[in-house]
Amino acid sequence: MSKPVVLRLGAIKYAQQAWEKLGQIAQVVTIDDATTRAEFLKACQDPSSDVSKTQIVARTFASVKNTGRFDAELATNLPGSVKAVCHNGAGYDQIDVSNFADKQIQVSNVPELVNNATADTHVFLLLGALRNFEYGHRLMLENKWPSAGAAAGAPIGNDPEGKTVGILGLGGIGRAIVDRLKPFGFKKFIYHNRNRLSPELENGCEYVSFEELLKTSDVVSINIPLNPKTRHIIDAAAIDKMKDGVVIVNTARGAVIDEPALIAALKSGKVRSAGLDVYENEPQVPQELLDLPNVCSVPHMGTHTVETVKKMEEFVVQNVESVIKTGKVLTIVPEMKSDIWVQEQKPLA
Amino acid sequence: MSKPVVLRLGAIKYAQQAWEKLGQIAQVVTIDDATTRAEFLKACQDPSSDVSKTQIVARTFASVKNTGRFDAELATNLPGSVKAVCHNGAGYDQIDVSNFADKQIQVSNVPELVNNATADTHVFLLLGALRNFEYGHRLMLENKWPSAGAAAGAPIGNDPEGKTVGILGLGGIGRAIVDRLKPFGFKKFIYHNRNRLSPELENGCEYVSFEELLKTSDVVSINIPLNPKTRHIIDAAAIDKMKDGVVIVNTARGAVIDEPALIAALKSGKVRSAGLDVYENEPQVPQELLDLPNVCSVPHMGTHTVETVKKMEEFVVQNVESVIKTGKVLTIVPEMKSDIWVQEQKPLA
Repeated sequence: MSKPVVLRLGAIKYAQQAWEKLGQIAQVVTIDDATTRAEFLKACQDPSSDVSKTQIVARTFASVKNTGRFDAELATNLPGSVKAVCHNGAGYDQIDVSNFADKQIQVSNVPELVNNATADTHVFLLLGALRNFEYGHRLMLENKWPSAGAAAGAPIGNDPEGKTVGILGLGGIGRAIVDRLKPFGFKKFIYHNRNRLSPELENGCEYVSFEELLKTSDVVSINIPLNPKTRHIIDAAAIDKMKDGVVIVNTARGAVIDEPALIAALKSGKVRSAGLDVYENEPQVPQELLDLPNVCSVPHMGTHTVETVKKMEEFVVQNVESVIKTGKVLTIVPEMKSDIWVQEQKPLA
Repeated sequence: MSKPVVLRLGAIKYAQQAWEKLGQIAQVVTIDDATTRAEFLKACQDPSSDVSKTQIVARTFASVKNTGRFDAELATNLPGSVKAVCHNGAGYDQIDVSNFADKQIQVSNVPELVNNATADTHVFLLLGALRNFEYGHRLMLENKWPSAGAAAGAPIGNDPEGKTVGILGLGGIGRAIVDRLKPFGFKKFIYHNRNRLSPELENGCEYVSFEELLKTSDVVSINIPLNPKTRHIIDAAAIDKMKDGVVIVNTARGAVIDEPALIAALKSGKVRSAGLDVYENEPQVPQELLDLPNVCSVPHMGTHTVETVKKMEEFVVQNVESVIKTGKVLTIVPEMKSDIWVQEQKPLA
């Protein structure tokens, strides 16, 4: 009997050993780095291509450049043999889950492993924004320090003391952020989720409405997944409800914020500063945003560490292996958790 | 009886009220912002100038541009009536304390109040250096993101897990840094002071020799005052003893590090990255250092916050007031703590 075919989309950096080992029980297929969506969809339906025999797809965030989004069209055109899509990342907004549920294709993500590295990034950006560090850094690089006086003329920042941090989305990442911020001396942590959490999971944060969070936070910390309900949840109207001089930090997904509205608010001073790891149309970032000295920004580096990337890549292999041996992924996305067809999946080998 | 004369050197930002109130019990004198050291020394000895009647000097770090260092020459030329120099800042390396002790002029600094804001800055720089955030940020600003791939091509960073942080100088700031870093998941905190601390003050850190700290730290966190013994304590030889790829963070004083040696090590990769708030000849910073993408830098912004600057400025006024009312500053520098002449000071009013 031939081995199950696993299609690996996107580069791996550190999990070579894990993939080699997987090769003992699976046939691993890849595509050329220059492949376009049209070419990919064609290969899926071309019986002479190994891609057309795929039973499990393993994919990275960056592989979207070869395949485009995992939408209805792609779900329809994938080989009929595909049983699971194993995504490397916590956020899976590139995958329209309902279209895959319709085809009884499981979707898994990598939750939890990303929490620490993302929270570390969040704290860095939060401190940078609260303290105007990027402003001073930029002035120093422009050789303004000797002439412009103390801190190279950067506007003075703020201490955590007396400030309220509003966590929009208190999940694993949000909790890891709160754990890290506790020793800094903030006055209060509040949060908003669609539903209030149990006290153990609240981690000392006070539950408030979305409106209340916008109105009373000195720092708005964004940690919600992107989906049609959360797209542009932080728009001009939401920003207008915030405190004057609020600080906004986003390590979730760019499109949760209406980016032009944020840029306007950063220019007017309504939003004093922002810490951003993600952008609405990344890797394209508006020059207008890059030009603002009150934005502390990094190019989607939330989990860009040797240790975390390695763990995530290896976990994807574990998900693939689980499908082969049990028929089921280890970490199915919440939307599919209670689907009966998932329970009925059989081992591939 | 006339009020004691207080000479205020350097601008105040937030303590106007405190100084106004002090005006009820003191005559506050200032100098022109364009004053040179020669002019200042002349005014000190000119009986027609109010400066020559000064009994207490209050000064800022930045006022060095008008007076130069508080060295032997300045101690000798200050009006004979001066009883105390109240410095605004934790570090007082601009003041040669022994020359003032010779003249029985007390020197006070502002300890403790700076701890939190400095530690926040330190954590920001440490995360930035460990994660290569400045590298990615710079590439993004150079519009390299779309073309250079993930993280705009920034070299991958590291997580805290498994890493040892070496605290060189575990005082108030060092302890505040450790408090903040604990939830991030580092493997171990070690420290070196001239003498081992009592267990309460060690804050869970393990005492090691200077050599051992250099050899075993993944992150070297510098928090020692600058004085003749600590100048260039981190030189080429010390860096050579460190781990390859070490991360160095300095929010203490620039000259604790031999800056050209650090630049060479950052270029060779011996030091993977650095987080710097202070520079050897600030506000002059070598262009070579500014050009390095593996340096996360801010222009001496350690205490650049509304809350901390206000508290520090107000505390200087409290020191001045204490001299007027009791003859003694509240926070005398350690070098003078056991001097008998200090105990014999009498109220000025």
